[in-house]
Amino acid sequence: MKLYMTENSGNAFKVRILLSLLDVPFEKALVDFPNKEHKKEPFLKLNPRGQVPVLEAEGKVFWDSTSNLVYVARKHGGEKWLPTDPLGMAEVTQWLALSNNEIHYGLQWARGVKRGIKQGNFEEYQGYGRQGLAVMEGRLKTHEWLALDRPTIADIACYPYVASAPEGGFDLNEYPSVAAWLKRCEALPGWLKRG
Amino acid sequence: MKLYMTENSGNAFKVRILLSLLDVPFEKALVDFPNKEHKKEPFLKLNPRGQVPVLEAEGKVFWDSTSNLVYVARKHGGEKWLPTDPLGMAEVTQWLALSNNEIHYGLQWARGVKRGIKQGNFEEYQGYGRQGLAVMEGRLKTHEWLALDRPTIADIACYPYVASAPEGGFDLNEYPSVAAWLKRCEALPGWLKRG
Repeated sequence: MKLYMTENSGNAFKVRILLSLLDVPFEKALVDFPNKEHKKEPFLKLNPRGQVPVLEAEGKVFWDSTSNLVYVARKHGGEKWLPTDPLGMAEVTQWLALSNNEIHYGLQWARGVKRGIKQGNFEEYQGYGRQGLAVMEGRLKTHEWLALDRPTIADIACYPYVASAPEGGFDLNEYPSVAAWLKRCEALPGWLKRG
Repeated sequence: MKLYMTENSGNAFKVRILLSLLDVPFEKALVDFPNKEHKKEPFLKLNPRGQVPVLEAEGKVFWDSTSNLVYVARKHGGEKWLPTDPLGMAEVTQWLALSNNEIHYGLQWARGVKRGIKQGNFEEYQGYGRQGLAVMEGRLKTHEWLALDRPTIADIACYPYVASAPEGGFDLNEYPSVAAWLKRCEALPGWLKRG
């Protein structure tokens, strides 16, 4: 199994966290981000969307962090990190949606603007991001984990860009249950620390 | 099973297509969109994100079209519309990611600006949308369906906002394989026609 990634990519970090939790060996294929290797051939043959992560496994290639998480969870995690019963899978998936929406074009994009690597409407992204954090705070006030009362790929998918939200101008002191959940994630055996 | 929806919501339409394909009866709960019922209590108790669709099933409530598709596919569709083997599920999921990214904040948002229901950077959304259509065109030039060489929830999730892309200023004549795929979707027995 080979993971195309950069050390800084939060989306690739999601996949690396799960691989670490499950203690699955893999080969790192480091993509030269400053030289935009991910926007050129031959990388675009692997992922026409021009993004990391990309996972190569069993002769197949999958782009997108959620598909990578799904592959690793189903292949190596049994029913634990992504259950296949209708209710359980739907509950995990609704939080994956938050990671793909408010967290992505809220927290991640606001941070991108602050760091000068993305153009766009900072106030708009801040609004989406605060809405995402408020939804998480509502859930985590009364639950330890986002879905199913146990850690799942929902927590992993939401973690990186919530953890780095302060770099996008968000104050996590306003979301104490979210801040406590970040620490709970980091305390899981095998959780990967950011380099 | 009850689906909170509006007749115009493309995201709710995804769920209605799958329910129609599988011939599953459900109750429509029409949300008063002009009066912003979805942004107020008690709707926000069902979905703190303030959006449709929301699915109520087996005493649980799931927000987000992808989670709704996952629930219906797993509950009523066996392995057909969303397989649970690692490779199959990952392949479907990578196209769900396109629907959650380039299609959502490309095609859907550009159309929203054109229709005056969303503010934002039209050129930026057009760029994302064209990228998403190009990725689909690349796949559909040589395949009938987005994933697995059969129709899955990947096709359903991508369909509505690709079908309505011309209202966002996109010319589907530039993407002939995508246009042919739209017709292939519509020819599936049980496919739901837009009202």
